Amino acid sequence: MIRNNRQWRLRQRPVGDIRPGDLELVPSEVPTPGPGQILVRNIYLSIDPTNRIWMSDREQYMPPVEIGDVMRGGTMGVVEQSNNPHYTPGDIVQPWPGGWQDYTVVDVAQKPMVSPQAPMLAWMSALGMTGATAYFGLLDIGKPASGETVVVSAAAGAVGSIVGQIARIKGCRVVGIAGSDEKCAWVVNELGFDACINYKRENVEGALRRACPKGIDVYFENVGGEILDAVLANINLGARIPLCGLIASYNATTPVPGPYRFSTLLMKRVLIKGFIILDYAPRMGEFVADMTTWVGAGQVKWKVDVVDGLEHAVAALDRLFTGGNTGKLLVRIGPEPSSA
Amino acid sequence: MIRNNRQWRLRQRPVGDIRPGDLELVPSEVPTPGPGQILVRNIYLSIDPTNRIWMSDREQYMPPVEIGDVMRGGTMGVVEQSNNPHYTPGDIVQPWPGGWQDYTVVDVAQKPMVSPQAPMLAWMSALGMTGATAYFGLLDIGKPASGETVVVSAAAGAVGSIVGQIARIKGCRVVGIAGSDEKCAWVVNELGFDACINYKRENVEGALRRACPKGIDVYFENVGGEILDAVLANINLGARIPLCGLIASYNATTPVPGPYRFSTLLMKRVLIKGFIILDYAPRMGEFVADMTTWVGAGQVKWKVDVVDGLEHAVAALDRLFTGGNTGKLLVRIGPEPSSA
Repeated sequence: MIRNNRQWRLRQRPVGDIRPGDLELVPSEVPTPGPGQILVRNIYLSIDPTNRIWMSDREQYMPPVEIGDVMRGGTMGVVEQSNNPHYTPGDIVQPWPGGWQDYTVVDVAQKPMVSPQAPMLAWMSALGMTGATAYFGLLDIGKPASGETVVVSAAAGAVGSIVGQIARIKGCRVVGIAGSDEKCAWVVNELGFDACINYKRENVEGALRRACPKGIDVYFENVGGEILDAVLANINLGARIPLCGLIASYNATTPVPGPYRFSTLLMKRVLIKGFIILDYAPRMGEFVADMTTWVGAGQVKWKVDVVDGLEHAVAALDRLFTGGNTGKLLVRIGPEPSSA
Repeated sequence: MIRNNRQWRLRQRPVGDIRPGDLELVPSEVPTPGPGQILVRNIYLSIDPTNRIWMSDREQYMPPVEIGDVMRGGTMGVVEQSNNPHYTPGDIVQPWPGGWQDYTVVDVAQKPMVSPQAPMLAWMSALGMTGATAYFGLLDIGKPASGETVVVSAAAGAVGSIVGQIARIKGCRVVGIAGSDEKCAWVVNELGFDACINYKRENVEGALRRACPKGIDVYFENVGGEILDAVLANINLGARIPLCGLIASYNATTPVPGPYRFSTLLMKRVLIKGFIILDYAPRMGEFVADMTTWVGAGQVKWKVDVVDGLEHAVAALDRLFTGGNTGKLLVRIGPEPSSA
């Protein structure tokens, strides 16, 4: 059997939007695992806003990807060769970093924490890092109480769509902000949000005022920019803002200031706290227990938006910034094992 | 005995800096207390940055002072007449709102919580709202641990000077930011700060890098603006920012954005939380117990900057915005009782 590997390598740091030539897909050898290592064939590649951060040399929470290196990314795949007694060929694992490539050699890889029978796509969305990000950000920082109003931006996105459903389970009024009528219809009709604002058609500040008659107690922030100001105009005393992402600024070529209503944080005694899901690794068991229950009971639904072919990874990432996806955006690098 | 009253009344909302004609000092009758009320002769008037907020109609944490009304302000005075069995003429009290005036009639007034023998000026600074603001903001939100680095802006001001001393008691490295070499010398030599940066002479970002070799764990924010960006450039993972004031923007005539390094809150998982001392009223006993001990032991020193004469209240307030004061700024409206 002849196997080929392909790797997306970073050629130069993008300025603003990613352009042709910033990354290059190059053929390479399938690597050989050394002592204690495993060879993983990547099947799904997670496409996340943070990928764009890693391409830049701006301040960030991990070292940036170096020029010439394989692009970093989360993947899920199947073990093809193992020199490690903990893994058997055929195991489904999440190697770190999987990378934007067909094959990865790693020393360790995460196995699904429970229920390996769950679909691989569930592990790439609600049951994986995406779901955990929604879970800990909302519950640990947002601390929503029953009867409170929770607003989430990028509401039809991977994390936002899960955030709103957890908030519903906690008894909150949930208002989403998304970029199309179709997305809004999906989160309201399918996911049970109480309302959703299409920020491309509506004045967000006014629409929030109408959709949140008792004000906003928790705002799960994925975007930043003008949306954050519109939320702050409607924020309640003692509100909490889990800061998960600021995608509105990731492609910026000039410094993007914080919200013009920054002083509202003082006047309304608002808490805002940034977080990264890696910080919650020691508590992942709490998430798995709750989320498998909720997904099993149909209380949390998940949706994936799958792009076929590693060669389309850059184009897929671009869709995150143009609002082209609904639910968790993935690239399918290769077929799932037939036994899965 | 003929007594006269004078009142500062708000005539128009200041635009930018306060200008002549925005407030007017007018003579008036000494009010007569009704049933259950007391008449207080105001002795000290607290001059605080928040006074400027109350004059405006911007978003704030209390209703603004209405045009034509007596300017709101915290005072300490002596009961002259009492129709209330809880108060006796001669009692030292803090009426609310005392107002920018010689005499106040109120239904209730705060008595010093313990040790009425403490000097009135102590109750107007370290043992009063000023000290409590420093105490709860630093300890409840900042949560400084021994060995951590605490930075405080407006370090020679009423609150900042107390913040730094409490942080020293907690075993932290303390770095102040102030507006003159004299202020810096005072907080280092008299109050025990480890270092102080004169923001008018030094590049604050670079100076903080040198003064905080292990980065910044807690930043007690009194000013906002460029100083906050300089701090964020040196902030540590998981840092906490009690947001007490944003004086740099109070005189602004155009919207002042949040920090350009706003995304650092995400990358470094920083917590920022606004607070108002009134929120901590139920916990004031904790503060009184600790602060009376510290002041008694000489671990917390306080300094007042007293301007004589109610007629100079507006000019006194202006000094807060030009950096003209050191320690707690007060106006002495009238003499202390000779028995005090």
